Amino acid sequence: MLRLFLHQMNATVGDTAGNLRKVAEGLDHARGSGADIYITPECALPGYPAEDLLFTPSFIDANRRALEELGAHTKGLTAIIGIIHREDDLFNAAAIFSDGELKGFVKKMNLPNYGLFDEHRYFQAGTTPVVVKHPTARIGITICEDIWFPSGPARDEALWGGADIIINLSASPYHSGKVEQRERMLSTRAADNGVFLAFCNMVGGQDEMVFDGHSALFSPEGEVLARALPFEEDYVIADVPVENIFHHRARDPRRRVSVLSEKPAPVNIIEVNPPGSPERSPLPTREILPISSEEEVYRALVTGCRDYTIKNGFEKVLLGLSGGIDSALTASIAVDALGSAQVVGVTMPSRYSSKGSVDDSEALAKNLGIEIKTIPIEGPFNALLESLAPHFEGRAPNVAEENLQARVRGTLLMALSNKFGWLLLSTGNKSESSVGYCTLYGDMAGGFDVLKDVPKTLVYALSRWRNGEADGAWIPVNTIEKEPSAELAPDQLDSDSLPPYEVLDPILKVLIEEEGDIEPLAEKYGEEVVHRVAGLVDRNEYKRRQTPPGVRITPRAFGKDRRFPITSRHKRVSSK
Amino acid sequence: MLRLFLHQMNATVGDTAGNLRKVAEGLDHARGSGADIYITPECALPGYPAEDLLFTPSFIDANRRALEELGAHTKGLTAIIGIIHREDDLFNAAAIFSDGELKGFVKKMNLPNYGLFDEHRYFQAGTTPVVVKHPTARIGITICEDIWFPSGPARDEALWGGADIIINLSASPYHSGKVEQRERMLSTRAADNGVFLAFCNMVGGQDEMVFDGHSALFSPEGEVLARALPFEEDYVIADVPVENIFHHRARDPRRRVSVLSEKPAPVNIIEVNPPGSPERSPLPTREILPISSEEEVYRALVTGCRDYTIKNGFEKVLLGLSGGIDSALTASIAVDALGSAQVVGVTMPSRYSSKGSVDDSEALAKNLGIEIKTIPIEGPFNALLESLAPHFEGRAPNVAEENLQARVRGTLLMALSNKFGWLLLSTGNKSESSVGYCTLYGDMAGGFDVLKDVPKTLVYALSRWRNGEADGAWIPVNTIEKEPSAELAPDQLDSDSLPPYEVLDPILKVLIEEEGDIEPLAEKYGEEVVHRVAGLVDRNEYKRRQTPPGVRITPRAFGKDRRFPITSRHKRVSSK
Repeated sequence: MLRLFLHQMNATVGDTAGNLRKVAEGLDHARGSGADIYITPECALPGYPAEDLLFTPSFIDANRRALEELGAHTKGLTAIIGIIHREDDLFNAAAIFSDGELKGFVKKMNLPNYGLFDEHRYFQAGTTPVVVKHPTARIGITICEDIWFPSGPARDEALWGGADIIINLSASPYHSGKVEQRERMLSTRAADNGVFLAFCNMVGGQDEMVFDGHSALFSPEGEVLARALPFEEDYVIADVPVENIFHHRARDPRRRVSVLSEKPAPVNIIEVNPPGSPERSPLPTREILPISSEEEVYRALVTGCRDYTIKNGFEKVLLGLSGGIDSALTASIAVDALGSAQVVGVTMPSRYSSKGSVDDSEALAKNLGIEIKTIPIEGPFNALLESLAPHFEGRAPNVAEENLQARVRGTLLMALSNKFGWLLLSTGNKSESSVGYCTLYGDMAGGFDVLKDVPKTLVYALSRWRNGEADGAWIPVNTIEKEPSAELAPDQLDSDSLPPYEVLDPILKVLIEEEGDIEPLAEKYGEEVVHRVAGLVDRNEYKRRQTPPGVRITPRAFGKDRRFPITSRHKRVSSK
Repeated sequence: MLRLFLHQMNATVGDTAGNLRKVAEGLDHARGSGADIYITPECALPGYPAEDLLFTPSFIDANRRALEELGAHTKGLTAIIGIIHREDDLFNAAAIFSDGELKGFVKKMNLPNYGLFDEHRYFQAGTTPVVVKHPTARIGITICEDIWFPSGPARDEALWGGADIIINLSASPYHSGKVEQRERMLSTRAADNGVFLAFCNMVGGQDEMVFDGHSALFSPEGEVLARALPFEEDYVIADVPVENIFHHRARDPRRRVSVLSEKPAPVNIIEVNPPGSPERSPLPTREILPISSEEEVYRALVTGCRDYTIKNGFEKVLLGLSGGIDSALTASIAVDALGSAQVVGVTMPSRYSSKGSVDDSEALAKNLGIEIKTIPIEGPFNALLESLAPHFEGRAPNVAEENLQARVRGTLLMALSNKFGWLLLSTGNKSESSVGYCTLYGDMAGGFDVLKDVPKTLVYALSRWRNGEADGAWIPVNTIEKEPSAELAPDQLDSDSLPPYEVLDPILKVLIEEEGDIEPLAEKYGEEVVHRVAGLVDRNEYKRRQTPPGVRITPRAFGKDRRFPITSRHKRVSSK
């Protein structure tokens, strides 16, 4: 029997000292729990992803020093810790300590270089799988991407290295649907190799990424034996009954065929000899159930918002409240992330604001318990129009005047941000920025855009879900039920300029998340609307390039995930 | 004797039809010139870099269709054309046509994945070098990065494929110093392999990249035999005396050693049999001399500004004129790129603007022949202050009020941009954005920031150089000679907040371009200033993330070239 301790931690990029402290505390806790093996997520010491900080000598030095300090904390157990390892080159690696001694390194073999990932830019790949030979069991080590390959190092570690347990250190970023997809894969991997599989994931937000946690232990049959909390720092302490796994493996029919028919692959063995296991009290059982998909996305947004704010040293955030659903949901997330006292709402009514909008904002602020400030924009808006009048003479009002109002609001919010040192949250959603239905330096102004990757239809679903969780009134029903409007012109509605969101969002999903074919869309929704939307997406890359970061919750977010040229004459569809 | 035609062309990303038309015109011209071999830059058909457009099915389809059309244009000669090639995977490749027939593909073997480049994200690498066997000579083909490796495919093509000429199709992005460095490398490569070497480079701007051209032909002794114009579409038509190269190679002592001591590498041969060479008139000689480093950078900026504007469909640009040197140089570049009639300057004086500043802007506009508009900001600035007064009560004026002025200006400029459809050029330089001495949504507002990668000291050098080239008055001498000031507070000078630019710029070069050690800097300039600058650079990543693109002219620009996390607690230097 082997007791594992998976430390699902929230590392901060560049905070090597703080991350080291967390690991040391985790090691103490693990020791106190009678654990044999302590495990962190990938890159627990440097944080993930460190990006071009990996080219900064002082950053690499700080990590080497932290690694040297780490050993002393590993007395009495075996520790597998996610680090960056500098040898002749840089490796994304795990350091193996046992009873205070550094025993060796395991280098990540499969470096992701797609989507959000740029690991070929930084790391050399490891070439040989590693098994840690512990007196009680053989433990194969893999790092994140490694485990996604059915014929990756886990297989060689099990087949040729005799691993009883495969451990995976991950910093696996969240998107909606990922948790289920990943658990299914891990479960299959455990069963395919006839091993226990312990998955230790990062948790917390880092710029546009959120790591969802969901660390877990899988049986050789692929069942989940233990699971950590989602979106929170947590531990999995679990006893792994490795005694019978030899017999389990010996009668695995596919393993037998593989051993007979394949050429053995080299596997490095790192031997560890920690002192005998201490007295161990039995573990309490706890069951952590999966959460609904709305709750999952909502908590991802809360986590991303909280960590961006706090890790960047802000104590308070502010945001404009329009009476609409985007700002209402953003405020709700901010309150859940930081507490009511840390959130300030600002209403900035204009000549086009309906009475209802102001009322809805006030009701929202009251329900959420946040401070509200009111700054009418009529004065500055008029002053700007007056200054521009000689230059605009003879020209009909157009988008210029609409944007002007949005920019007065952006300017007022930034003035408050600059004066008080609060982080400005912008409130744009993915549907808007996809088609450019938003104003640069206006409603797009801010340090963090919580809903950046949330399509409008999902904004509604999340708002309804959150209202269902609330004790009393939360997001005003009127905010959810009224027709969406930017209120930048008389009686303006989103539907004047855009197709209904129930049509727009599925089109955008195919165009952006899936890079799919236009034809089936055109058949379903009509050519005109699909071509119009595709054209808008193509034309508005320049706006998206200047947006603040926001939480990625879909398989393909704007930002590092979708790298489009601004200058491009390609049209997905030929214009008629 | 073989006649080469290097088509140094300006492709536009995504404009497959337009690029195809240019190639077809080039082929006609080559045929008319009696050329045997026609060569384009890398990715002449799709444009470079197409980034995630490479994941868009309609883009790949458009390229396949263009490739099919291409053959018909290659009657009577051999053509080597940069394309993307879809097989079982995607390849950055050259298509080999001869007399109208597609003969095969050459796949790029060395895929760059550093700095600005992400080719591992998109392409599979070729595995075998290719030599085109023409009746007159053997021609080894390489694509861009391939030629930068001394033991890359060029070597195998020469050593084992018997190549007499190595051809390199490139889209090699410019930075200051690159031209000399690249010519030195190409010259060495020609001499090392004892071959003629023809380098055909892209020219023109694509978002932050500028391709400088400088296509050239090198002798087996490493001499430049012919060279194309810098920063312009151009042709190199050159006769290559391949008759004697066999004897040249046969007596190359290092080649003899290599052939004896190394294991032969496989080289694919593609045979072409174009009709016999036509009657050929002798070629006129022309000599293209290297240009000064200031002219080189200046012309890179002109090219980048021109192509961003035109390729994105703008006819006119506007920019704010402060009376300072950044806006003056930006206006000068815009005029050289687009013509005086396409540039509009806007002065927006405030209570803190000196009389001199307005005069200098007016003098500049007169010298450059551009339209100038004046919009005082006092009205909107006061209206904003008034709106904010109840919320700012009891707080001393700080950066909030300074930024407010910059944002009024940004808002006015964007209003003109929106009203008239002109592209707003922002005028920030690299020194400012490195340390955050600039206002988000204020002076940073705009679609393109021409000087984004130009350190302030270089802004001065370029202004002086340009004035030296001018017939009459150009940038007012007072603009160059007065102390730099943002004029956002009474008697404000840049030097109140920042070290002198002669100190700041060398520190920034080490920190940003070189990721070098702090210690030597601290010894030279004092610890305090170096630590302060490093702290400012670290803290202002969030601002830089929301800047418009600009022309890269240093070895490491902000943008795709330097990918730093915003959320990072790493300090290059420990704070005291």
